[in-house]
Amino acid sequence: MTFIDMLRTAQERNGSMLCVGLDPEPSRFPSVLKDDAKKIYDFCARIVDATADCTIAFKPQIAYFAAYRAEDQLEKLMAHMRRAAPHVPVILDAKRGDIGSTAQQYAIEAFERYGADAVTLSPFMGFDSVQPYLKYEGKGAFLLCRTSNPGGDDLQNQRLASIEGQPLLYEHVAKLAQGPWNTNGQLGLVVGATYPNEIERVRALAPTLPLLIPGVGAQGGDAAATVKAGWRPDAPIVVNSSRAILYASSGEDFADAARREALRTRDMLEAAR
Amino acid sequence: MTFIDMLRTAQERNGSMLCVGLDPEPSRFPSVLKDDAKKIYDFCARIVDATADCTIAFKPQIAYFAAYRAEDQLEKLMAHMRRAAPHVPVILDAKRGDIGSTAQQYAIEAFERYGADAVTLSPFMGFDSVQPYLKYEGKGAFLLCRTSNPGGDDLQNQRLASIEGQPLLYEHVAKLAQGPWNTNGQLGLVVGATYPNEIERVRALAPTLPLLIPGVGAQGGDAAATVKAGWRPDAPIVVNSSRAILYASSGEDFADAARREALRTRDMLEAAR
Repeated sequence: MTFIDMLRTAQERNGSMLCVGLDPEPSRFPSVLKDDAKKIYDFCARIVDATADCTIAFKPQIAYFAAYRAEDQLEKLMAHMRRAAPHVPVILDAKRGDIGSTAQQYAIEAFERYGADAVTLSPFMGFDSVQPYLKYEGKGAFLLCRTSNPGGDDLQNQRLASIEGQPLLYEHVAKLAQGPWNTNGQLGLVVGATYPNEIERVRALAPTLPLLIPGVGAQGGDAAATVKAGWRPDAPIVVNSSRAILYASSGEDFADAARREALRTRDMLEAAR
Repeated sequence: MTFIDMLRTAQERNGSMLCVGLDPEPSRFPSVLKDDAKKIYDFCARIVDATADCTIAFKPQIAYFAAYRAEDQLEKLMAHMRRAAPHVPVILDAKRGDIGSTAQQYAIEAFERYGADAVTLSPFMGFDSVQPYLKYEGKGAFLLCRTSNPGGDDLQNQRLASIEGQPLLYEHVAKLAQGPWNTNGQLGLVVGATYPNEIERVRALAPTLPLLIPGVGAQGGDAAATVKAGWRPDAPIVVNSSRAILYASSGEDFADAARREALRTRDMLEAAR
């Protein structure tokens, strides 16, 4: 089953376009686990178990594991997700971007070592920095397109003089991903939730690509506007929320609280279809 | 001592602008170590010991360690370099690029976990994705600017209509790094060796920044033209060669052969000043 098929299946089965982002910060863990970097797996596994039936995907952010020397816990977590939620695809959020020979090593890391179903990538170094990931049949790759952090404008929002129609840089990325770069139907795009009109613009340029949309929840994007702008019956959107779900409670009921917040967000997104 | 000072000191002491890139591929190891991913540390440490007195920097590429589950060996190698070559700064080649809270985790990985003196970064997500690294006083950060891989043109070589003078994207990055982004003198730029006229252009826009220049050696850039275009008495260049040095011999003499190739490259670069 390809990544796109997995997304469609999870979306139908769980009635959800919510992705739970796994960004474990031991300093924010509930008091029973607080400040214990050896409990990253335990914390994340509890969140996974509590939300597996209401998500379209899980998205572990590898930086949080790397900072705490917790690659072994990430491996264990990936295996746990495969077992406990076999129908929910896993997107490894790594935003890699390097020349072909190095990209090949990063692809081994994401797909062979961790067994991810998809990965996030930076397009800055061009097509041959993306290609090695596409050699893994059925795996997905989300390219950074338009991010809604304060510096998102610095490069992505620049207008390109040399290309017909003078698109903005992020629009150019969207066109490349929908067109020439998408050699085998594996690409998707990362688009921030903060500016729904930009999601709409990306959707117009990339009508069939899955969109990974971070920024609903703690980051404050408008869920209804996001869904309206991005969701199409044939093109899934994957709307990420991390902190609002992970840290919904600092008590022992953190997994139940995470589930309640995930259900609330899922239902809010579904209602906006 | 800041990263820039370390570069200057190593340059003078070793009479070198050569950086040895550590991209360990067990399948290319000499026959005594071949195909043994547990020997990554041994292989790299031998290369470090053989070249420590003729390099301006070492540059381990983290992807090669991640692909082989060898983070522990990278930690050990970083400690070894600190001990065996305390005067040679270490650039962790990671090309990270993510929003502030995640960048903070990657900065912990690079500077606290691995103790690197500098890191490579992607500018695609803008200034706030770079800023967390600059909070580490004295540490360096090289931003991807103009890379010479086949896809380097795809984005970096696009002309920007919306900025005065219509620079190319990579020229815009160079200006940002020399100017407003370089809040505390820690930034440098990554520029490929293949097009010396582009190095010259970057040097004109960023007269005082250190340039990290991969692509001499196996990748075939012209060493003399590279030095002429980039080197300035006050602004060091760090010219990387990886495979040509690492795999100079597949026999037991691999470390000696690496040293000979490193000396040859160093002298070729020095002669071109």
